[in-house]
Amino acid sequence: MNEIVRGVTAADALLGAAEFEAAIRAVGAERYHDKHPFHKLLHGGKLSKGQVQAWALNRYCYQSAVPRKDAALMSRTLDRELRREWIHRIMDHDGIDDEHGGIERWLVLTDALGLDRDYVISMEGALPATRFAVEAYVRFVVEQPLTVAVASSLTELFAPAIHRERIAGMLENYPFVNDEVMAYFKRRLTQAPRDADFALEYIKANARTREEQEACINAVRFKCNVLWAQLDALHNAYVEPGLIPPGAFRPNA
Amino acid sequence: MNEIVRGVTAADALLGAAEFEAAIRAVGAERYHDKHPFHKLLHGGKLSKGQVQAWALNRYCYQSAVPRKDAALMSRTLDRELRREWIHRIMDHDGIDDEHGGIERWLVLTDALGLDRDYVISMEGALPATRFAVEAYVRFVVEQPLTVAVASSLTELFAPAIHRERIAGMLENYPFVNDEVMAYFKRRLTQAPRDADFALEYIKANARTREEQEACINAVRFKCNVLWAQLDALHNAYVEPGLIPPGAFRPNA
Repeated sequence: MNEIVRGVTAADALLGAAEFEAAIRAVGAERYHDKHPFHKLLHGGKLSKGQVQAWALNRYCYQSAVPRKDAALMSRTLDRELRREWIHRIMDHDGIDDEHGGIERWLVLTDALGLDRDYVISMEGALPATRFAVEAYVRFVVEQPLTVAVASSLTELFAPAIHRERIAGMLENYPFVNDEVMAYFKRRLTQAPRDADFALEYIKANARTREEQEACINAVRFKCNVLWAQLDALHNAYVEPGLIPPGAFRPNA
Repeated sequence: MNEIVRGVTAADALLGAAEFEAAIRAVGAERYHDKHPFHKLLHGGKLSKGQVQAWALNRYCYQSAVPRKDAALMSRTLDRELRREWIHRIMDHDGIDDEHGGIERWLVLTDALGLDRDYVISMEGALPATRFAVEAYVRFVVEQPLTVAVASSLTELFAPAIHRERIAGMLENYPFVNDEVMAYFKRRLTQAPRDADFALEYIKANARTREEQEACINAVRFKCNVLWAQLDALHNAYVEPGLIPPGAFRPNA
């Protein structure tokens, strides 16, 4: 099940901590989904309300899968301290007791976009490619070595920049978006860095061969692919060529 | 992967809620581990300190696996409300932030018994049969239908009685046991009933065919087997015939 890292063997020299971190950050610079044309259209105010609806209901699939992948990671480790740290991710997304959590905040966004909540939660209108990408992420966390699974969360290193841009761009450009609607992203501005710092320190301490380090870097590439594939699917269906698959959400339908 | 229920088909009549609950409670009356000879020796003050040590360090394997199986269950459900309820089980065992949780309380017990904490946590001295039984439980929760996985937690219906008996019996009979040491069991007196009530209502609502109901009843039998097998292994190794497997804990060694 291990990721196969082409051209690297366990005998290769370990990267220093700074070099390792730089290699991970370079993945973001190269392929984080803020470089996708759909992202630029979204934040630049170039999308119709229907296209933003399509984005929001597809992205719900990803949001709602996050606690499942985090619980899967917790289910795999004997390390109580890792579990005690990681559980906060689930609490952030699912909420706890009287706190609503990120998924609920996402539904506030889809509500504001005029989407029926049950329809969003059912995921019936989501693109199959979205769901395949999301479930590939959950399986990756179930199946890969634990350190590599932790590494796959590290796209959070790149998230605050995109969220700041998203908040500003969407508030400015769409009349149907307000502060309350953007609460999800505002919250992530503080949550994501804390989580990313922990995960980064964890992989620095636990990737003990060059092969494991490269597998961690590949995990961030994989995760970027998961995010990119979701925007590809949206672009294909709702921008150009506008090929909406059978059964998927149709704006104004 | 479904449990096969002999002689029952989906066409059979659904049990009423009370009848269903009674069938589950009957499993406890028949085969919960309070009926095991080792349990009677433990609570009756008939064990040596070495035998109590063996029990405590083997039982640690079970305690420490509980959050993994609960996280596994959470990783399998799209039902946010179920996850929001179930996460409390993990918090109870792992603790959260400044709260220590049940595993830590268990280690207070093994500390008091004079066992080295790292040795206990390593599980090196545990009986292989203990670990096989515990991991069978984790796999059951990973692989069985969700309602059946929930049902396997229902031995908690029978736990408060055994814990009350254990607290009284152990405090009375062992000079090396005090109130602080029994904190784990005291806490479970209130936690277990809340959890069990939720799980019972969940399976009543979600087992919608007789076959599913019987699979739930079988899940409680399975779980009783998991608990019983652990006491069998202890009895075999440390009471009679006293056949301690290679590598397993040896009292006073």
